[in-house]
Amino acid sequence: MTKTTPSAPVDGAADWPDLAGRLIVDDAGGKRHQLPVRVYFEDTDFSTLVYHASYVRWCERGRSDFLRLLGSDHRRLIDGSDGGERSAFVVRRMTFDFYRPARIDEILLVETSVKEIGGASLTLTQQITRDGQRICEADVIVVLITVSGKPIRIAEEIRRAFGAS
Amino acid sequence: MTKTTPSAPVDGAADWPDLAGRLIVDDAGGKRHQLPVRVYFEDTDFSTLVYHASYVRWCERGRSDFLRLLGSDHRRLIDGSDGGERSAFVVRRMTFDFYRPARIDEILLVETSVKEIGGASLTLTQQITRDGQRICEADVIVVLITVSGKPIRIAEEIRRAFGAS
Amino acid sequence: MTKTTPSAPVDGAADWPDLAGRLIVDDAGGKRHQLPVRVYFEDTDFSTLVYHASYVRWCERGRSDFLRLLGSDHRRLIDGSDGGERSAFVVRRMTFDFYRPARIDEILLVETSVKEIGGASLTLTQQITRDGQRICEADVIVVLITVSGKPIRIAEEIRRAFGAS
Amino acid sequence: MTKTTPSAPVDGAADWPDLAGRLIVDDAGGKRHQLPVRVYFEDTDFSTLVYHASYVRWCERGRSDFLRLLGSDHRRLIDGSDGGERSAFVVRRMTFDFYRPARIDEILLVETSVKEIGGASLTLTQQITRDGQRICEADVIVVLITVSGKPIRIAEEIRRAFGAS
Repeated sequence: MTKTTPSAPVDGAADWPDLAGRLIVDDAGGKRHQLPVRVYFEDTDFSTLVYHASYVRWCERGRSDFLRLLGSDHRRLIDGSDGGERSAFVVRRMTFDFYRPARIDEILLVETSVKEIGGASLTLTQQITRDGQRICEADVIVVLITVSGKPIRIAEEIRRAFGAS
Repeated sequence: MTKTTPSAPVDGAADWPDLAGRLIVDDAGGKRHQLPVRVYFEDTDFSTLVYHASYVRWCERGRSDFLRLLGSDHRRLIDGSDGGERSAFVVRRMTFDFYRPARIDEILLVETSVKEIGGASLTLTQQITRDGQRICEADVIVVLITVSGKPIRIAEEIRRAFGAS
Repeated sequence: MTKTTPSAPVDGAADWPDLAGRLIVDDAGGKRHQLPVRVYFEDTDFSTLVYHASYVRWCERGRSDFLRLLGSDHRRLIDGSDGGERSAFVVRRMTFDFYRPARIDEILLVETSVKEIGGASLTLTQQITRDGQRICEADVIVVLITVSGKPIRIAEEIRRAFGAS
Repeated sequence: MTKTTPSAPVDGAADWPDLAGRLIVDDAGGKRHQLPVRVYFEDTDFSTLVYHASYVRWCERGRSDFLRLLGSDHRRLIDGSDGGERSAFVVRRMTFDFYRPARIDEILLVETSVKEIGGASLTLTQQITRDGQRICEADVIVVLITVSGKPIRIAEEIRRAFGAS
């Protein structure tokens, strides 16, 4: 009996190579992540501009896809299938500065990089631009906690992946 | 040592008596539920009108608060603390008709009633109005499923509460 | 001819007196605003806790209803019907600290007060609590801009209403 | 005087060729549109599954990008820059059937095709699948209205683009 491989990958990622954005590695080995987002109806409000909480959602997408391209994801974390305890990243603190408005149909770029890695926490800098113009900037601190709410140390492989030396 | 009871109820419901809307019982014992919703920035889009998916969220609030005023809620269902198996209502089918647009700052009324009670399912009719004018109407079928995904029979007390005779 | 007053107010506010929360005035004339929010399905995520961007939406509701109880609202501002130029408040900067998670079905209280009034800007402090326990705190700077994007001075009556002496 | 072309496209579309999904033309000239969506935190709820209103947002993305790849978009419509009156598509009726749950981190495919073209309206069929498995199906009727609310005839070029013969 022959075991056939499925004609399409389980998660469809191969069909849409850019769906999780791109990982950029600079000469010094530093990593950052780029994710494009399209502005849809759902992201705007009656001022005709982008609603401010939409940027918060987009930054979360950027962080999730950064983690994904580094080899992990949320389901794996919460299932403990990375070999560790069941855990999830939660936001502890975030600061957003808004510089210019964005509008329906535009393509924005969410760029994420790690500023600092603590024992259980990550501080990320996120910048949202349109054609190189700064739209919004965020500093976000996330903490890895177990399902019972206790902070736990981020695994070495994730730390290494994020580029901590 | 005296154990004092807290001066305020745990969930703050007493301070805001209308927060879960109101249950209306007609002469024949039929029940319906009314929930007011305010249109905020988050509910509108760049057309300056209410975004169509906002009505879907509001109808879900109406169903949740209807259930709440009948004596149950989602956490109790999923914890199995109603004495039954851990379960949750999921939407199986929904139809929305949009008649008039709504706008920022307006107060809309979500009225929910039960059209039919099946073994594991409820069919609800929901109407959203503004000063008596019909804005949107929905028919929604929800099914009670266990955490493993199997439909289970809705408990007698919930059936009775919804007014099934 | 008799001018009759309508039996119901246009916006339904009389039927639901608490819908826009409550204005609290302290002995020194300082004002703050309280708005209860119920946690619905839409506000939670797969971690089973409240999604962090939901707090951003709730704080915006608090600011909008604070403004409303002080006598203005967004549509009036953007229509210029307060007698001024067409304008809207936009968020310039926001910082959120998250202290404890919140969960489905809970009632949270959003408390908003003005920290500072500039020429075109307001700095607000917002605290979200559950039974007096601190869940989240935010500092938000909003700026009043004209539809063309220029900051304009906040009208005296709004300044006075917010309690600037 | 030399007219220079910009070094980068205004909307960044060239850098992310798949961002608006793909247009598929069958042998008979019929067109359908495919858009992949990733399930993020924002799309799920405390049941740990995708929140039902998220499918409504995703279908809107599919319709918007279908229109975009056919040569128009929302801003052009509302600005009247397609040469016509200022107008926008609004949803008149939608029916959603939910077959299977979807979960965080999954990639879903939103497939959109036109079922019927009326004078001012479009009836679209939308199917959301995961690896070929049916997750959700929707029938959506949208109507093109002017900013004053009057339905207007969909322009010939858009009708032709959608494949009306």
